[in-house]
Amino acid sequence: MNDTFLRACRGEKVEYTPVWLMRQAGRYLPQYQAVRANVDFLSLCKTPELAAEVTLQPVEILGVDAAILFSDILIPVEAMGMSLEFPEKYGPTLSEPIRNKSAVDRLIVPDTEDDMPFIIETIKILREKLKNKVPLIGFSGAPFTLATYMIEGGSSKNFINTKKMMFQNNRLFNYLMDKLTLTVTSYLSAQIRAGVQAVQIFDTWAGVLTPFDYKEAVLPYVKKAISELKKQGVPIIYFANDCAGKLKEIRKSGADVIGIDWKIDIGDAIKKLGKKVVVQGNLDPCALFLSREEIEERVKDILWKGEAAKGHIFNLGHGILPETPVENAIALVEAVHKYSHKV
Amino acid sequence: MNDTFLRACRGEKVEYTPVWLMRQAGRYLPQYQAVRANVDFLSLCKTPELAAEVTLQPVEILGVDAAILFSDILIPVEAMGMSLEFPEKYGPTLSEPIRNKSAVDRLIVPDTEDDMPFIIETIKILREKLKNKVPLIGFSGAPFTLATYMIEGGSSKNFINTKKMMFQNNRLFNYLMDKLTLTVTSYLSAQIRAGVQAVQIFDTWAGVLTPFDYKEAVLPYVKKAISELKKQGVPIIYFANDCAGKLKEIRKSGADVIGIDWKIDIGDAIKKLGKKVVVQGNLDPCALFLSREEIEERVKDILWKGEAAKGHIFNLGHGILPETPVENAIALVEAVHKYSHKV
Repeated sequence: MNDTFLRACRGEKVEYTPVWLMRQAGRYLPQYQAVRANVDFLSLCKTPELAAEVTLQPVEILGVDAAILFSDILIPVEAMGMSLEFPEKYGPTLSEPIRNKSAVDRLIVPDTEDDMPFIIETIKILREKLKNKVPLIGFSGAPFTLATYMIEGGSSKNFINTKKMMFQNNRLFNYLMDKLTLTVTSYLSAQIRAGVQAVQIFDTWAGVLTPFDYKEAVLPYVKKAISELKKQGVPIIYFANDCAGKLKEIRKSGADVIGIDWKIDIGDAIKKLGKKVVVQGNLDPCALFLSREEIEERVKDILWKGEAAKGHIFNLGHGILPETPVENAIALVEAVHKYSHKV
Repeated sequence: MNDTFLRACRGEKVEYTPVWLMRQAGRYLPQYQAVRANVDFLSLCKTPELAAEVTLQPVEILGVDAAILFSDILIPVEAMGMSLEFPEKYGPTLSEPIRNKSAVDRLIVPDTEDDMPFIIETIKILREKLKNKVPLIGFSGAPFTLATYMIEGGSSKNFINTKKMMFQNNRLFNYLMDKLTLTVTSYLSAQIRAGVQAVQIFDTWAGVLTPFDYKEAVLPYVKKAISELKKQGVPIIYFANDCAGKLKEIRKSGADVIGIDWKIDIGDAIKKLGKKVVVQGNLDPCALFLSREEIEERVKDILWKGEAAKGHIFNLGHGILPETPVENAIALVEAVHKYSHKV
């Protein structure tokens, strides 16, 4: 079994730096597009055989060291009782954005086994099909990131409604964050029980806050979820996007692994995060538009700097872009394996 | 004359911390909306009497310590030969995005006096009407930020076309950046000759780059423009948005004042920038949705931390939002004046 990824998560010695790519199962792969041609995005997420199929594609095609469950971060939000749609050409939309207490009252803390059985089923199929070839990562959106979608009703530019609630009705905001923290914790625990061997918490929109607001209004919930999840014994990765200015706060999350976006030098990030955490990252997804030789140079630079941390898992600094040439993603994975511990 | 702003720019001792707000002439002001009701945005920019009128509004209404020329960063791009539109509900769009050498060949380096006479005229009216009450700031987009609009044809999410050109056709990218640097330098020089007493260079999209790419492909042009402009003898402010992870590079820009967005603690930013520059910033624009008391607390915190720098000009970390209550913007300005050097 290739457990390099799991050992790196724990800060153990590894023969080479493991690599996987955020959104590695996705539109840049013709094999993914072939599956998606016959099914809409949400149905794909909810059809275990198909979700498992696209999860496995990058393991075969790229040779990455981990698979990550194919799903959407808003799946548990739908299970909480909101109506979710993915209109063509737009981002996700949630009907009736959360703006008052009765709206939060109506939200349930879903039971993953009962309310999202397809997630459990997908994980079971995957563990069987992977035959321990590589570990399987589960994931969830972080409470704050899910809250932004629920309060804004979808994506946002300035997150005014979210910050207004945080600033003007902190009791309501905390009530929502409490329910979301329970949901995230229970959702990831169920994924772990079903068989995922590590979990990643995506805090995609944490970056829109000041360090002060992040520390006061968001970090306590992240810490609570992570400390609960740690009892399950699997590595926990926390990826807070666009947070170059908040790493001092983020190091307190309690996560085993901290994901780093590409907007900061990984060496600088490691200095801020200290020696107690493993780092994951941080190639600019657009660097995959470079030539193979230049991709290799950037890989070497990140590998070299990554050695300063307790451990390093190679990844992009954000999700792989649909326009990415597959051969360059393959070249990236090869370069990480080839040059790690040799730079 | 209230020259507190100019003296703070030079790092001189001031009685209180000067304050102005990015986009202070804008939609949150009913008086601005009244003017805009009768004229489209681009015509407003190009009608000196009206542009001067809206420039002066926040000086009267808020009591800020500087006026900033009302205009749009894409005005010189239009003068370079691209066709600019502001469709309702969308961001700016530029026809025929720049993707090849002949497109760059066709761009001219405009002569501000001849090609944008309304800018000169607006500045002259303003200096007369301001009667030295407060200084007048001129501005331009930075070469890279203008390049992104020209290459993408408008705003962008991932800036793929820009980075593709930067990565795959560096010669073409540099050719465009050279022309833009000449344009920005000449445009700001003309503004200074016409009477602006300081200039701000907005690098709104610098944040989308890795520190490495920023340093290699963007910073040299910023430095070149700034070193040319320094000969004119007015303070130069450089605001690179979302650059918490690139302050080590940004401190090398040569600007007298560095603008800081709200995603980093201003105390941390000052540590990175060192003692040689004045800082400007950095209240989260959404903090203006807080109560007056809470706004005051945040102002005090930023003022207190700002004292560690060579000098401090109070500002938001980004443009004021259209939804902002005017009374809170007034409260902010009052709080800065009241609490500076007393925290």
